[in-house]
Amino acid sequence: MSKIPVMEIFGPTIQGEGMVIGQKTMFVRTAGCDYSCSWCDSSFTWDGTGKHLITQMEPEDIWQQLKQLGGNGFSSVTISGGNPALIKNVGELIEVLKKNGIKIALETQGSKWQDWFHEIDELTISPKPHSSQMITDFKALDDIIHRLNKQNMSLKVVVFNDEDYVYAKKIHQRYSTVPFFLQVGNDDSSTTDDTQLIQGLISKYSWLIEKTMADDEVKNVKVLPQLHTYIWGNKRGV
Amino acid sequence: MSKIPVMEIFGPTIQGEGMVIGQKTMFVRTAGCDYSCSWCDSSFTWDGTGKHLITQMEPEDIWQQLKQLGGNGFSSVTISGGNPALIKNVGELIEVLKKNGIKIALETQGSKWQDWFHEIDELTISPKPHSSQMITDFKALDDIIHRLNKQNMSLKVVVFNDEDYVYAKKIHQRYSTVPFFLQVGNDDSSTTDDTQLIQGLISKYSWLIEKTMADDEVKNVKVLPQLHTYIWGNKRGV
Ligand code: SF4
Ligand code: SF4
Repeated sequence: MSKIPVMEIFGPTIQGEGMVIGQKTMFVRTAGCDYSCSWCDSSFTWDGTGKHLITQMEPEDIWQQLKQLGGNGFSSVTISGGNPALIKNVGELIEVLKKNGIKIALETQGSKWQDWFHEIDELTISPKPHSSQMITDFKALDDIIHRLNKQNMSLKVVVFNDEDYVYAKKIHQRYSTVPFFLQVGNDDSSTTDDTQLIQGLISKYSWLIEKTMADDEVKNVKVLPQLHTYIWGNKRGV
Repeated sequence: MSKIPVMEIFGPTIQGEGMVIGQKTMFVRTAGCDYSCSWCDSSFTWDGTGKHLITQMEPEDIWQQLKQLGGNGFSSVTISGGNPALIKNVGELIEVLKKNGIKIALETQGSKWQDWFHEIDELTISPKPHSSQMITDFKALDDIIHRLNKQNMSLKVVVFNDEDYVYAKKIHQRYSTVPFFLQVGNDDSSTTDDTQLIQGLISKYSWLIEKTMADDEVKNVKVLPQLHTYIWGNKRGV
């Protein structure tokens, strides 16, 4: 038995963030996180409010459900959380997906290593800045980045304020050869007023672009929004 | 003398489109195009209205101007047009940029080959669909894609309507191993009402996402907007 605690399976939709932004993909969201970021937009995966949604599933059953939802219309699966790196059994899901010719993307904050990281096609490590109220374990992060040497991966830091930007820069300078993404934080992950949300997001995005463009110490960077919030607002499972 | 007809040099700003979306980069826009797409958002490069802006510049002078504008704050230069592939001398600009450790991105519609294509780090070939009122020369395009075998490049098709989508699919199926990007067309490249523009762009983007997600024949695709229009509307040179 290699059960995985699954929160939701959905798609096909687009990947809204980071190194595979825009990609048509299915999503598998696992339950549980070792962090509790102040602004977490998936807190239902770890704060108890989504407990009733968790299903313990075998990798093969996850694959069946992906096929049922996505039919023959996808070639990519994104595993997100929570922190999927907490779950050793995700390695078996990865095997099943690979066997079926699927490209795999995964995001984790970089607090914990799994050997199956090596099997991920597009791995995003997303350390959390000060505004999250989490403290980065740089020993763990150094170790992860070091082991991933030469793999197709990237670092992504979500930025809410000036202090976060300083943190992001530190990450970029510490791991200067790793592709580096800055992402605008969503200040308001509960509003249902989409017009207001989008205006706020665009103005924050402009702020982050201006800051980065004016900074001579940050040259090789991609500054991106969360595209799905432009389309679906704060709606879940799209 | 290896003059290049330059329309504008600007930056640092973000790349708003395609395979390097979000990248901090300087821009060099060359004058002249062999196409005259009905919805061209850079028609001032070829329709005479920007004639007074064209400067014949030596590659080294272009580099000096890039440095003057961007200081030490950039490591990437994007060459766009018009169609930069019309200009043989762009090859010498590429040499100058490479010598200075710059990564180079370039976009062309794929109507004409240049040997210096091989030197481009991120090459976007963007054939034009029916709504442009241009006719693709598939012999030329086949030849270009064939020669670029194994290079870091992508195909990008701008989609305005259903017919364009059919064209885009044909391109994807013809060159099925090449990374494939769909981009929403900007119907209204002259309005200065940014709120209205953004609403229109987001609704067209949703339309294109829905269409692509429902299409089992298009699996490995990235569907993207033009990010710069979200930030700067139809403003030029940002
Ligand atoms: S690491 Fe991610 S899932 Fe976990 S609390 Fe932070 S934002 Fe939420
Ligand atoms: S190929 Fe590009 S620059 Fe030339 S007319 Fe078409 S859109 Fe404009």
